[in-house]
Amino acid sequence: MRDAYTDQLDELAGALAGMCEDVATAMEKATRALLEADLKLAEQVIDEDLKIDEIRHAAEEKAFALLVLQAPVATDLRIVVSAIHGAGDIERMGDLALHVAQAARRRHPQPVLPAEIAPYFAEMGRIGVELARKAVSVIETRDLAAAAELESDDDAMDDLHKHMFTVLMDRNWDHGVEAAVDVTLLARFYERYADHAVAVARRIVYVITGQMPGPLAV
Amino acid sequence: MRDAYTDQLDELAGALAGMCEDVATAMEKATRALLEADLKLAEQVIDEDLKIDEIRHAAEEKAFALLVLQAPVATDLRIVVSAIHGAGDIERMGDLALHVAQAARRRHPQPVLPAEIAPYFAEMGRIGVELARKAVSVIETRDLAAAAELESDDDAMDDLHKHMFTVLMDRNWDHGVEAAVDVTLLARFYERYADHAVAVARRIVYVITGQMPGPLAV
Repeated sequence: MRDAYTDQLDELAGALAGMCEDVATAMEKATRALLEADLKLAEQVIDEDLKIDEIRHAAEEKAFALLVLQAPVATDLRIVVSAIHGAGDIERMGDLALHVAQAARRRHPQPVLPAEIAPYFAEMGRIGVELARKAVSVIETRDLAAAAELESDDDAMDDLHKHMFTVLMDRNWDHGVEAAVDVTLLARFYERYADHAVAVARRIVYVITGQMPGPLAV
Repeated sequence: MRDAYTDQLDELAGALAGMCEDVATAMEKATRALLEADLKLAEQVIDEDLKIDEIRHAAEEKAFALLVLQAPVATDLRIVVSAIHGAGDIERMGDLALHVAQAARRRHPQPVLPAEIAPYFAEMGRIGVELARKAVSVIETRDLAAAAELESDDDAMDDLHKHMFTVLMDRNWDHGVEAAVDVTLLARFYERYADHAVAVARRIVYVITGQMPGPLAV
């Protein structure tokens, strides 16, 4: 019985890690679609989001079954509850990748971003995807040092996010209001994506240490 | 034993309803602070957000204790898991009210919104607060008809949100990029606030019917 139980816990962690890997790939593709005005890639991300939602549902069902059949306590219970939270965060990361892809599709064949802004988003995309992949590794290894790395990566994302506002508020901004609105929302999507990746890692820290790290600035 | 258990479940629902009432009040005050450039009120909302975060933590602890001590199954388990999700949604609603208050504080003593845009935000605030209060009543009464009402109220919020973009994209927008960025983010905060209120109600529907309503557009 105990073995089946451990298998179920491992399966749950595996489902979560797989889902997190999927949203990393989704954001990678969405960023490429955004930067290269690639409609086909944007549509692929949009189609695949349904799959992510289904996996989340399946992960929650697994967690639910574990709670009913095994009535876990202590650390095991924390793992299951963290998985429920984590699945929510990861689904939201998928939604945010979807929003990036939708922006690319909406403006196609025009590029969404002014040429000199694009490199910032390439960097936000790179950091976001790296955060998601590090969250995968934290889920798999429960490595506290890796979890701490996510926090400093997220600081880099926050700095880029803030910098975007400086660029937007600059009197020399000559790309008009529509581009400003797009940049505002897209920068927010990347920043929130990163926040959710950090939240996933923080839940794992909580499982290991019993303590939540300090609050995440939102 | 069974009585203490029912009491604990009721207490958990009560904590959730109280927290949801708090974030309704927070958004009510934040909207007034925004519309009236009221710094003191903005700072009150900002200070009180910490309390909401603490209540969320306490609600999660209650849910956790219930899972450990009572190992609930079937509907009771669904209630506890829904409460864990709901607490997350409601805390996020508090964060969004906080963001509105922070915008009011950041631009003080200037108003954030151009005068002709303000009425739309008065209305978004009104709908948002109403949604939160309806969610309170759904938590307390588990009334499916009330839960359905939230969906149509949310449609009204989505329409206003979309309309804001039409206003922003209009060639006659003459309030500059800074105001456009503020309006873009604020409209998004209200729309997300409403989405989370709907998500809370949907979780209750799931508890009652065993079925999640169709996906929420995000």
